[in-house]
Amino acid sequence: MGKQSMAKYVYSFGGGTAEGRGDQKELLGGKGAGLAEMSGLGLPVPPGFTITTDVCIRYHKIGGKYPDGVESQIDEALARLEELQGRKFGQASDPLLLSVRSGGPVSMPGMMDTVLNLGLNHATVEGMIGHGFDERFVRDCYRRLVSMYGDVVLGAPHDGFERLLAEARKREGVKVDSEISAAGLARLTESYLEYISEQGQEFPQDPRDQLAGATLAVVESWNNRRAIEYRRIHHLPEDSGTGVNVQAMVFGNRGLDCATGVAFSRDPATGERRLYGEYLVNAQGEDVVAGIRTPIAILADDGESNLGKDFPDAFAELARICDVLEDHRHEMQDVEFTIEGGKLYMLQTRHGKRTGLAAVRIAHEMVGEGRIDEVEALRRVEGEQLVQMLAPSFDPKEKQAVVDGGGLLAKGLAAGPGAASGRIALTADSAAEMAPTGPVLLVREETSPEDIVGMHASAGILTSRGGMTSHAAVVARGLGKPCIVGAGDLDIHGGELRVAGKVFKEGDFLSMDGTTGQVLEGQLHPRASEVIQAVVKRGDGAAGAQQEASPSVKAFVGLLEWADKERRMRVRANADTPEDARVARALGAEGIGLCRTEHMFFEEDRISWVRRLILSQSESDEAKALAALLPMQQGDFEGIFAAMDGLPVTVRLLDPPLHEFLPNDDKSRKGLAEQMGVSIEEIERAAESLAEFNPMLGNRGCRLGLTSPAIYDMQVEAITLAAAKLAKAGKNPRPEIMVPLVGSRGEMESLRDRAAAVVERVLEEQKAKLDIPIGTMIEIPRAALIADQIAKYADFFSFGTNDLTQMAFGYSRDDSSRFLPKYVEDGVLPFDPFEKLDQEGVGQLVELGCRRGREAKPDLKIGVCGEHGGEPSSIEFFETCGLDYVSCSPYRVPVARLSAARARIQGGAPVD
Amino acid sequence: MGKQSMAKYVYSFGGGTAEGRGDQKELLGGKGAGLAEMSGLGLPVPPGFTITTDVCIRYHKIGGKYPDGVESQIDEALARLEELQGRKFGQASDPLLLSVRSGGPVSMPGMMDTVLNLGLNHATVEGMIGHGFDERFVRDCYRRLVSMYGDVVLGAPHDGFERLLAEARKREGVKVDSEISAAGLARLTESYLEYISEQGQEFPQDPRDQLAGATLAVVESWNNRRAIEYRRIHHLPEDSGTGVNVQAMVFGNRGLDCATGVAFSRDPATGERRLYGEYLVNAQGEDVVAGIRTPIAILADDGESNLGKDFPDAFAELARICDVLEDHRHEMQDVEFTIEGGKLYMLQTRHGKRTGLAAVRIAHEMVGEGRIDEVEALRRVEGEQLVQMLAPSFDPKEKQAVVDGGGLLAKGLAAGPGAASGRIALTADSAAEMAPTGPVLLVREETSPEDIVGMHASAGILTSRGGMTSHAAVVARGLGKPCIVGAGDLDIHGGELRVAGKVFKEGDFLSMDGTTGQVLEGQLHPRASEVIQAVVKRGDGAAGAQQEASPSVKAFVGLLEWADKERRMRVRANADTPEDARVARALGAEGIGLCRTEHMFFEEDRISWVRRLILSQSESDEAKALAALLPMQQGDFEGIFAAMDGLPVTVRLLDPPLHEFLPNDDKSRKGLAEQMGVSIEEIERAAESLAEFNPMLGNRGCRLGLTSPAIYDMQVEAITLAAAKLAKAGKNPRPEIMVPLVGSRGEMESLRDRAAAVVERVLEEQKAKLDIPIGTMIEIPRAALIADQIAKYADFFSFGTNDLTQMAFGYSRDDSSRFLPKYVEDGVLPFDPFEKLDQEGVGQLVELGCRRGREAKPDLKIGVCGEHGGEPSSIEFFETCGLDYVSCSPYRVPVARLSAARARIQGGAPVD
Repeated sequence: MGKQSMAKYVYSFGGGTAEGRGDQKELLGGKGAGLAEMSGLGLPVPPGFTITTDVCIRYHKIGGKYPDGVESQIDEALARLEELQGRKFGQASDPLLLSVRSGGPVSMPGMMDTVLNLGLNHATVEGMIGHGFDERFVRDCYRRLVSMYGDVVLGAPHDGFERLLAEARKREGVKVDSEISAAGLARLTESYLEYISEQGQEFPQDPRDQLAGATLAVVESWNNRRAIEYRRIHHLPEDSGTGVNVQAMVFGNRGLDCATGVAFSRDPATGERRLYGEYLVNAQGEDVVAGIRTPIAILADDGESNLGKDFPDAFAELARICDVLEDHRHEMQDVEFTIEGGKLYMLQTRHGKRTGLAAVRIAHEMVGEGRIDEVEALRRVEGEQLVQMLAPSFDPKEKQAVVDGGGLLAKGLAAGPGAASGRIALTADSAAEMAPTGPVLLVREETSPEDIVGMHASAGILTSRGGMTSHAAVVARGLGKPCIVGAGDLDIHGGELRVAGKVFKEGDFLSMDGTTGQVLEGQLHPRASEVIQAVVKRGDGAAGAQQEASPSVKAFVGLLEWADKERRMRVRANADTPEDARVARALGAEGIGLCRTEHMFFEEDRISWVRRLILSQSESDEAKALAALLPMQQGDFEGIFAAMDGLPVTVRLLDPPLHEFLPNDDKSRKGLAEQMGVSIEEIERAAESLAEFNPMLGNRGCRLGLTSPAIYDMQVEAITLAAAKLAKAGKNPRPEIMVPLVGSRGEMESLRDRAAAVVERVLEEQKAKLDIPIGTMIEIPRAALIADQIAKYADFFSFGTNDLTQMAFGYSRDDSSRFLPKYVEDGVLPFDPFEKLDQEGVGQLVELGCRRGREAKPDLKIGVCGEHGGEPSSIEFFETCGLDYVSCSPYRVPVARLSAARARIQGGAPVD
Repeated sequence: MGKQSMAKYVYSFGGGTAEGRGDQKELLGGKGAGLAEMSGLGLPVPPGFTITTDVCIRYHKIGGKYPDGVESQIDEALARLEELQGRKFGQASDPLLLSVRSGGPVSMPGMMDTVLNLGLNHATVEGMIGHGFDERFVRDCYRRLVSMYGDVVLGAPHDGFERLLAEARKREGVKVDSEISAAGLARLTESYLEYISEQGQEFPQDPRDQLAGATLAVVESWNNRRAIEYRRIHHLPEDSGTGVNVQAMVFGNRGLDCATGVAFSRDPATGERRLYGEYLVNAQGEDVVAGIRTPIAILADDGESNLGKDFPDAFAELARICDVLEDHRHEMQDVEFTIEGGKLYMLQTRHGKRTGLAAVRIAHEMVGEGRIDEVEALRRVEGEQLVQMLAPSFDPKEKQAVVDGGGLLAKGLAAGPGAASGRIALTADSAAEMAPTGPVLLVREETSPEDIVGMHASAGILTSRGGMTSHAAVVARGLGKPCIVGAGDLDIHGGELRVAGKVFKEGDFLSMDGTTGQVLEGQLHPRASEVIQAVVKRGDGAAGAQQEASPSVKAFVGLLEWADKERRMRVRANADTPEDARVARALGAEGIGLCRTEHMFFEEDRISWVRRLILSQSESDEAKALAALLPMQQGDFEGIFAAMDGLPVTVRLLDPPLHEFLPNDDKSRKGLAEQMGVSIEEIERAAESLAEFNPMLGNRGCRLGLTSPAIYDMQVEAITLAAAKLAKAGKNPRPEIMVPLVGSRGEMESLRDRAAAVVERVLEEQKAKLDIPIGTMIEIPRAALIADQIAKYADFFSFGTNDLTQMAFGYSRDDSSRFLPKYVEDGVLPFDPFEKLDQEGVGQLVELGCRRGREAKPDLKIGVCGEHGGEPSSIEFFETCGLDYVSCSPYRVPVARLSAARARIQGGAPVD
């Protein structure tokens, strides 16, 4: 094979040029591409070369050997490097020393990482000392090489080296490694070499062998057990390979005019535009990792620059370089640097990780700086990152102290983000009683609709059972309250909570972090989110709040305004009360996609009438109860329609089975019996006759609408009366009536006819003109399959993906905690389908339902109002399906606005 | 428009010829086509003409008027008729009298039916009397015309005529109409005419007006309220129209040499080839309907012919005509005839309705007679008709007497066909205790797997809750026991059964007809099915039983042999015990498609070990319980594999949630606690921790296989050991392992790997060579949607359409009785989808699952083992999907064999 046709396996860089480019991350790995880019920009990078990821891929494909030509290309690159540095690798005096580092397209723990100081051996050590290098420095470099090489290349157990190092310190009577004398280091190195021999290996004295060994170790480590496991867990491709970076050494540990450090071009916590990072004087990178010496912050707390004081030129240069890199890479950078003899060298640059808060501010400010455009800013922030800006949080240090003190009691599913701390209540009633005197955490096995008042009153909700869409989780997210569910270690009985061997009674303090799922002992101090303070609590709209806003709030509001310009899908909220509606509207909701009416039924002044209705023995009893409920429901709707004036409000008719409204403990039953003047047996008999084996699959939703039609009639009348009243008062109410749980054409046809007749009658009586669309949820698999037939009788569809997921998988959301966490842990399922829409299975039903629905009625309005309506990957899928809107919990509306824009930018349905 | 191009609207018949043909049922209606056919064959039919259905269709289409030319064609046909009869319509002496009868392609109640004696008026009555007709006869004919015409054409309420008739009888002091004198009849007719006038109508004296009015009334009645409603309920087309038959009158009421009657060409109850029917001497058709005189049987109980004695010539002629008609129509006929002056006239012929027993025998014997071929015989018998031949039944007279005596206590869903009578037991335990002393009916709110022993012991099962696939229904059908479910009027509590205001205690007698859903008071006497006696109880195969078989049994066996030749799909049975397997095999099952293992777990010697397993606190406890269960399970499988030697047996691994195995009452819990030496609290805690809100959607099926893998391992080991042992003994066991409730690729992959490893290990240990396929049920909607992925790890699919229906509709089969019966009653759903497969919705999932599964694995074996596997319309659908087999309850195997053949004959998958 002629040299002409041979692939290029090795890319050199340094001396102001580079063979590779910054955008060749796939070929050179992230680190190699960054080095090439910096080198090409003339930034001070120690020269070197990158062996491509292609070599790694081929190596493993052809059974563990390099493809032809790799070795010769390495030799050529090394020769160029020697020429550039004017020093030979392996020469006795002042030799070229090298580092070898791995680096794939995606960083991956488990791979062999770094070997420094390659090129040292007995001969070059003496040569360097002879050449005038500080003896202690040289000997330290050598012992570091021997231990690193012995550990990562030759596989001698790491703790052996640690033990020998400890012995050396003891021998010399010193506390830290840097106090070991040159002689002590020489002796230590000898003991290292002996230890390696005892392991049946030999440290190679020939620098070329050292280089070949280290390079090969990187390539081989691609397929070690930990790396394979990591790729499996993180769904990374098996065939991307790693690059190998060989670079001339620079030394941060050659004296007090040397240092090594890491820096971010902006503050990764807040996004503020200032250098952020830390460094160690007279140290090599591994010293930072070892954590024995505490690194110095680049910027001191008082805003002064520590690095600027220690190394004024290097600091100025670092600031300039970060700016250049941001100009070229259009992103906040995370760099590694070394200062040798006061001169700055760049060892790595990559896009920096950041908090949600920082991501928003950086993206927003970079648009202002002209570095990126608005669309790019939207690409930079993930929906979930906004959640951090909305939830209250603990001071990380305060929380860590509790954890370190053994106060982490349990972990559950992080079902509602945010931090809360307060006295625990073990029943919803006591939560409501205790709430006026201070924050309460409601701790239950599981919540039920009866608990709604207590949940409202609580600062946070904690359950030992249930999954991500259990009642507790759904309600808590709707209320924007921190929530942890399925914390199975909590044992609640006999009026006590037992966990981690401790016993807590009502009134004891606990804390919880719903963002992480941690249950913590004692009282902590959650801080309210700045955005919520500014946007929701201070004003009624984003515009008003912006006037006195902090940079973070400005960025939040600004980014979402850009999102609103880009997105096609509308965003609505799931909200049941005027208060929720106001929060949702402040956070940008363009309507209510799901107003559940059952929660209204549980309010204190209603529930006894609801129970009378259920227990009614005659038509007149029934009519009396309905007549009492009608004005209350009407009032509910007036409040919500007024709060959402001019925006659509989709009201779902009653959904849960009737037995949920009956009291389920003896005491409440007795109370109800006395109140109603019936025997307790009568109430028990009613409850028993309504009980179901599988209520989720029972007589609820539109089935109830057909078996007990008077309730829906009353609700439709209340909706229409409320709208008519507001319309007469000059408002613009836009109610939409939604029938739940439809699974057949007959159900929809019949209930639509009935509801339309009531609407018509009431509008006529009220002499009002209003268009009130009547539609349905698509939440039964069969409804999606026959969507064309249902569409004929529906003005709109709203996918209820919670129930659709339950029935498509056959998983009860209340019981799935028995196996679903294990499924996800074992990789049986890639994720919890109640959290993210299962596009592969459930998604087929959504796609089919949309397609068939629109085949029958091309202008059918279609939305989604399940929990997935606020989840970014699901929103992306809904965009591809061509949905008109998503509806989610009020506190997720910003997430949905951003995610809808991001989905649109990435593709999806064509522009209308 | 020239006459040439005018459509033909009127078809004449009579005098040995006919313009129409017998196969023009769509155009002439069933009655018109029959008359044309008989006339064309030269049979004695009073001549006349038929106005086509097309006229009716056009009449309504063009807004209520005849298309051009109808009137003139009627006039022409009438002229031909007058010529043929040699008498004029409306002539004074001896006039032509006519009848007008409706008749569409399908007979339809609610339409105007019949007007007789048209042509009579004051003038013709006197003319006929003058001509020598009996005065009383003529006056009777006239008063019949006036009342019929007044009622059905002019709309005068019927009861007015009844009242006047009663007055006439009173006036003359007679008891029956036939005793009213000629003068009395004349006076009665006058009072009829006055009554009609009082209603604002006039009886037309002009015979032409009479004919036009009666004809038009038939055409218009097509769109009356009752007819429209009937078509809606029976899903009949709106645009088929009715024909109108105008025919010369013949009189069965002109004297003692006259008669009118109906006859079947074979016995419609037994299928025996003999004339069957009844007649009235000196009567018109309406006298038979009125029920005042009791008709005479054509054949007397002693086998002599009454009609032959009364009218020897007419009888011989009728027998000859029935034979001719069967020769031409290849079907058993149901005819109407009139004898006038000893001469036989045929008024109608149509295919006769018959019992299942008769259908089988007639089809079978007609093949023997060369009238039809085997394929046609299969077309003639519907699957459900076989069920009647397998189920025990009450003597219809005995049952009617109980009903007439007010003994019909309640009606429920007819969930398991057959009759049973016995003492009632209100718990499964007492059923088992009482069974040895006589037949027991188990009466429960609902049954659960715990009740299995008591259900086995009972002669019939009756529940107040549950639907067609509730536990009680499924188990009862599996056992071939009569079963009624969802009989909501039964109130069972406090050790008593209250129904219809009566109270029954344990030990009191009740009877039940599971074919009709009737619950009856007292003791009746069910008769065992002749087929079951002959095929199942006497021998082990159909062939052996045929030797001494009755004609019915011969027909049953013969028909099914023909079905076996025609069908493509295999038929297997759902059977859990060797006894069930033997019954299934005797009834023709070619394997077991579903062997449930949970029923084995409930047997007395097992259940305590199963409970120990569930409650085990350590691995050694668990291992001990499993070790105890292993040989028992192995024994179960040995028995079944031996019974089905050489045929495949699909064993489903454990399906129900574990809490089903724990006792649910205090007494049993206490017993278990003592037995296991643990506290009752411990058992309660275990039960509570396993309890689920929606067990149907909980931790069961393969989820259990993944969360508690040791149970499946034990079951797979038992299956393999059993097969290995039989194989060593020279048998040919063919087990197949089926994983239930798979919904994701991960579940199937993981469980397949695990099961295959156990099979391999055991086969190696046993030094046996066996191919044991591992497949899955497709019963989760998502499994059907991603069937391609699952097929990669499955050797076969078996659709579990019960669960698939539950989840596609979101109906719990245990709770759906709350709304499903009402849905079907109100037409929200056309039928109960647990009874018949919902092809429109659930069928899409079946079809998709088949298609995707075979895309991934073209030779994938696919069957169905839900209840639908034995339901004819569902089987037809499965044929079109290309399923390889259906599996059903043993007692439905014959139904499935026949239905599979019928489905194949009607189309379906192409021949391989």
